[in-house]
Amino acid sequence: MTTELSPDAPAPVGPLERARGEYEDLAARGLSLDLTRGKPAPEQLDLSEDLLSLPGGRHTAADGTDVRNYGGLQGLPELREIFADLLQVPAAQLLALGNSSLELMHDCIVHALLGEVPGATSRWVDQERVAFLCPVPGYDRHFGLCERFGIDMIPVPMTAEGPDMDEVERLAAEDPAVKGIWCVPKYSNPDGVSYSDETVARLARMETAAPDFRIFWDNAYAVHHLTDEPVEIADILGACAEAGHPDRAFVFGSTSKITAAGAGVAFFGSSPANVTWLLAKNAKRSIGPDKINQLRHVMFLRDADGVRAHMERQRALLQPKFEAVARILDAELGGTGLATWTAPKGGYFVTLTVPDGCAKEVVKRAAEAGIVLTPAGATHPYGDDPRDAVIRVAPSYPGLAELEQAIHGLTVCVRLVGLEQQAAR
Amino acid sequence: MTTELSPDAPAPVGPLERARGEYEDLAARGLSLDLTRGKPAPEQLDLSEDLLSLPGGRHTAADGTDVRNYGGLQGLPELREIFADLLQVPAAQLLALGNSSLELMHDCIVHALLGEVPGATSRWVDQERVAFLCPVPGYDRHFGLCERFGIDMIPVPMTAEGPDMDEVERLAAEDPAVKGIWCVPKYSNPDGVSYSDETVARLARMETAAPDFRIFWDNAYAVHHLTDEPVEIADILGACAEAGHPDRAFVFGSTSKITAAGAGVAFFGSSPANVTWLLAKNAKRSIGPDKINQLRHVMFLRDADGVRAHMERQRALLQPKFEAVARILDAELGGTGLATWTAPKGGYFVTLTVPDGCAKEVVKRAAEAGIVLTPAGATHPYGDDPRDAVIRVAPSYPGLAELEQAIHGLTVCVRLVGLEQQAAR
Repeated sequence: MTTELSPDAPAPVGPLERARGEYEDLAARGLSLDLTRGKPAPEQLDLSEDLLSLPGGRHTAADGTDVRNYGGLQGLPELREIFADLLQVPAAQLLALGNSSLELMHDCIVHALLGEVPGATSRWVDQERVAFLCPVPGYDRHFGLCERFGIDMIPVPMTAEGPDMDEVERLAAEDPAVKGIWCVPKYSNPDGVSYSDETVARLARMETAAPDFRIFWDNAYAVHHLTDEPVEIADILGACAEAGHPDRAFVFGSTSKITAAGAGVAFFGSSPANVTWLLAKNAKRSIGPDKINQLRHVMFLRDADGVRAHMERQRALLQPKFEAVARILDAELGGTGLATWTAPKGGYFVTLTVPDGCAKEVVKRAAEAGIVLTPAGATHPYGDDPRDAVIRVAPSYPGLAELEQAIHGLTVCVRLVGLEQQAAR
Repeated sequence: MTTELSPDAPAPVGPLERARGEYEDLAARGLSLDLTRGKPAPEQLDLSEDLLSLPGGRHTAADGTDVRNYGGLQGLPELREIFADLLQVPAAQLLALGNSSLELMHDCIVHALLGEVPGATSRWVDQERVAFLCPVPGYDRHFGLCERFGIDMIPVPMTAEGPDMDEVERLAAEDPAVKGIWCVPKYSNPDGVSYSDETVARLARMETAAPDFRIFWDNAYAVHHLTDEPVEIADILGACAEAGHPDRAFVFGSTSKITAAGAGVAFFGSSPANVTWLLAKNAKRSIGPDKINQLRHVMFLRDADGVRAHMERQRALLQPKFEAVARILDAELGGTGLATWTAPKGGYFVTLTVPDGCAKEVVKRAAEAGIVLTPAGATHPYGDDPRDAVIRVAPSYPGLAELEQAIHGLTVCVRLVGLEQQAAR
């Protein structure tokens, strides 16, 4: 109850009361908005409309291969050529495979568990313990793979230049159970950080106690720029080779957020020894990838410049959404001390950091008001963000008007929860 | 040297000499023919020409799902409906997944090795020994999967009704390390046998020492008939459920030899518990299969009758090839006692059985004459056919004229090697 005043004057309302009122209004609107996943919007998928009627009458690759028949474990050479530069992998060391890079990461772990990777002294499954370094915040599906296979996860904080390399170097050097590190090196998921040249060099150069240490280099956003100053990262395979650790990095990429999500082509690139290793494993599993879909992509994308031009059209659709998020967060939360957020130059996410102990509550309140966010904690191993502060926002899928509603609603929740926490002190 | 006779009379030539002469003539022709793999011929692939420009302007599934975006781990319901009857799996228990059923078999083994299948008391990788029953002759790629994962293979002879069930029952009952059996139940690879109802019932009913025993039911040729009397087999999932072993069978199928080889859709069907198990594993690995390709297949095949009509067109192309093989084998080897062969009612292979100890030599001589066959022994675990007698012939890929040349040449090699063996005794 507020103190009674003159009936003519409006009751003076404190910030917490105002926030409560705003939240009630929000909840009363019965919204149903989803900011959970980094999914392309329908308009983005429309950009690849032509794919749906390709390859049309054609069914032969450049070398005469009938793409409708079995075979070709490496994928179509002309598609591998297109993505070689974009993924910084020589075409001869790049494989074009199925419809999902996540599958390739899963399968590389499986093959390392059940068969020795080059340089290994045993299968990972025969080791007492296997651990991966997990830069945080990071990608929940990477962490999900580790959890599924009982691989211990060791969080390492992200910096503005990539993972904290002092920590990475220390952990990799001292513990032979540390077999890998997850990296999204460009426009990382979720914080949009791109690794500095120094970070790449140190990853390539560092000593590792495990002879079969692998960098899982998930270059998911290689060409997914949001500004007219595309970020370039250093060449990890080249750096590893130069540092005398040629087999250290597995490079992954896909066209899921270029052409169609789930109906694109995924890529694996690595050293000749690693490529030979994966091909040998794949030869037992498969009689080859879907080469018709690969030809379809070649005809649609044409060349690396075709990919770049296509991504400019994607950017034209995505950039306004990211600008709207920044504008609303700034207008509603700027100067409040209740949140900070990233301004990514590419990729699919904005990371919103709220006061410690508030993230779960913000996500809960938002859900109750009809705005679904990625679960708080998902950005950390085992779903456990020890500060309970990080919220991943995925602006790509909703239309602009819906997105603005959702972000505005989110700021209402952040203010409410932040002020409630302050009031409770 | 033949005995000298009157210079006017032709030298009397024995069967071995005649065979040698024929082989020399064959080798001199410099052929280059390939009977190794069960690949569809280009004319068969032409039957699915329309697939190449589908789905055209459409990108929504029957339930409104945008097939261009992520999601839908079970695959498109309307495609699962089409194949439910054909594969004898209720649509609710049938998953439409990637481009290869071999991959699904591989992955089921991986998931059983690294995570417990329903009914298991431990992961297979934690068992001292895992063994599979391998009906022989069988499919080399099945055996390759076992070899790759260190799974012991126990050969079981095939009969005209499927695997020797006395042996299967004995081995499954007495050894808890026996975790599975490979079955190609209809028009089996390579001997064209279809399992009798009694065989299916006994497989479903038998006691197994392993609580997590699995039948890998590779129904690769479910609709691949070569006569107008399509063979029907009993429903393995129903039989297992009825026998109180609902989780015993994993059913696999694909459209690789219906639409496009390597660019089709693969299926997994099983009990609700097994389907839930695989979906949970897949959820960590994938954000869903290529639904555009699934929609493409729905639009092209339409319904189960559409598949049947399409397979009639396939049969019109394949049947003459199998007839040619039978005709030439009969004409050239009939009554010689040097070979027997199968007359399959469906599927992709003819099995040629030559005298013990001759198969490798026939394949070698054929290769030297430019006719490449599947390596002798490939039909057996570890590539070891103990009798060295079985040769798999794949008539589908070559054109009819080439096929006739190749089979004729093969009979020359069989005669030569058989007669040489007789002469050496």
